[in-house]
Amino acid sequence: MPNPDPIGVFDSGIGGLTVVAELQHLLPAENIFYIGDTARVPYGGKTRRTVERYSVEIGGLLLAEQAKLIVVACNTASALAVPRMRKIFKVPVLGVVAPGAEAAVMATKNRRIGVIGTRATVASGAYEHAIRLLAPAAHVVSSACPLLVPLIEEGLFDDPVTDEMLARYLAPILSENVDTLVLGCTHYPLLHRAITRATGPGIALVDSAKNCAAAVKSLLSEQNLAAPQDRLGHLNIALTDPAEGFLRVAQNALGIEIGEIMTLAVQSTDRV
Amino acid sequence: MPNPDPIGVFDSGIGGLTVVAELQHLLPAENIFYIGDTARVPYGGKTRRTVERYSVEIGGLLLAEQAKLIVVACNTASALAVPRMRKIFKVPVLGVVAPGAEAAVMATKNRRIGVIGTRATVASGAYEHAIRLLAPAAHVVSSACPLLVPLIEEGLFDDPVTDEMLARYLAPILSENVDTLVLGCTHYPLLHRAITRATGPGIALVDSAKNCAAAVKSLLSEQNLAAPQDRLGHLNIALTDPAEGFLRVAQNALGIEIGEIMTLAVQSTDRV
Repeated sequence: MPNPDPIGVFDSGIGGLTVVAELQHLLPAENIFYIGDTARVPYGGKTRRTVERYSVEIGGLLLAEQAKLIVVACNTASALAVPRMRKIFKVPVLGVVAPGAEAAVMATKNRRIGVIGTRATVASGAYEHAIRLLAPAAHVVSSACPLLVPLIEEGLFDDPVTDEMLARYLAPILSENVDTLVLGCTHYPLLHRAITRATGPGIALVDSAKNCAAAVKSLLSEQNLAAPQDRLGHLNIALTDPAEGFLRVAQNALGIEIGEIMTLAVQSTDRV
Repeated sequence: MPNPDPIGVFDSGIGGLTVVAELQHLLPAENIFYIGDTARVPYGGKTRRTVERYSVEIGGLLLAEQAKLIVVACNTASALAVPRMRKIFKVPVLGVVAPGAEAAVMATKNRRIGVIGTRATVASGAYEHAIRLLAPAAHVVSSACPLLVPLIEEGLFDDPVTDEMLARYLAPILSENVDTLVLGCTHYPLLHRAITRATGPGIALVDSAKNCAAAVKSLLSEQNLAAPQDRLGHLNIALTDPAEGFLRVAQNALGIEIGEIMTLAVQSTDRV
């Protein structure tokens, strides 16, 4: 029996591994090919045009690995580049914004929802848009948190500095009496404990990883793309720069077993 | 009279503008063409191979602008990529590490020198090597400060969070009784006040910008490359991603007058 085509997953760095962990849990038979664009991480402060170029490029690399669908496991790329990827690629392209918005609308009782993310994600308004499509009366308040990704990449998950930055970033949201907070960046689930310390227990934290994995499962079933169930899938990881920090954080914080890592070249022949 | 060829200067982001400010001060007649590789910033956590590729690529873009010499105004690229650039390019290539090391050796009285920089710069050992070439008996102690660049790019120059991170990063250096501290990243002069708060007044802070500009002046004179002195040079700035934060920090913190900014495409056709 031939090896089934993989689910292609990408992120600018390690954050997308939170989605990989959920996919492995929900779809153990599926092969996964993950690319972390560590040569150009982070995406969150860059412009739409640049994030689109990078996303299309990495999408092409996933297709070269026979990906049967592409999961954009990066909120910035989901917010900025999914429409363009869907125009270009014939395979299904799933982002994390729509599943996150859906989870938030399911979770909220008072229809007041906070969103945290990178500067680019928040500036795009993608979550507000996706939430209002589902719940037009929802009140959405967003806050850009540009230092959280560097703090997470340094492994400062439970640290006074991270707590202080979270207090500042969350103040404008907490003052709006939200009952639900969207972790609008795939890195942020690694700060689950710190964010709970900052919000207190009364606020539901929503991350898109679980809902994104559920959306992938539905799509595989609808389109008859699922791998045979009597097998155990494997995970391939490729990075555009073999950053040492990647492994450290991924294995310690996410408990993902990582074998050999490939290095892939990225080509940017587009004119800006 | 034709417009004189410019001095080419590059950095991964805004840090190199500290070198530009010194060049403008010391060499007012010279044209300067600056490229900030904002599409791929930061370099400091990436591998030698990737930093070499990026540096050679940006060097090529500067040569396409007729640069008569290339100033690598980025410590990470200076530490990792200058040897390869010198192999490839015929124009002179000046980094910031050698001038910084020279300034440190001039400044120290007890021959105990601290160095702070990005993870990649510190791991390269470039400053230790350059300092020991000049002062074989010097005691050099280094500390990687990966969060300082993100804090600076956010403009948190005088902030308790920056002070706390500096205290942690500097502790292993201050315990070694150094009398001189090399700011081994072109971003760090923007933290001059915060670093002085952390070290106290007894430690000389050395940044390579001034010495680098002096080295450029000597080289122009030796090689007969100086522009006619009866003119005022101009500054061109190009970015690989038109990041909004760039302008904000550059103008507020450095007081550099920035006119129109070009956007340049980067091409990476190398195989990794």
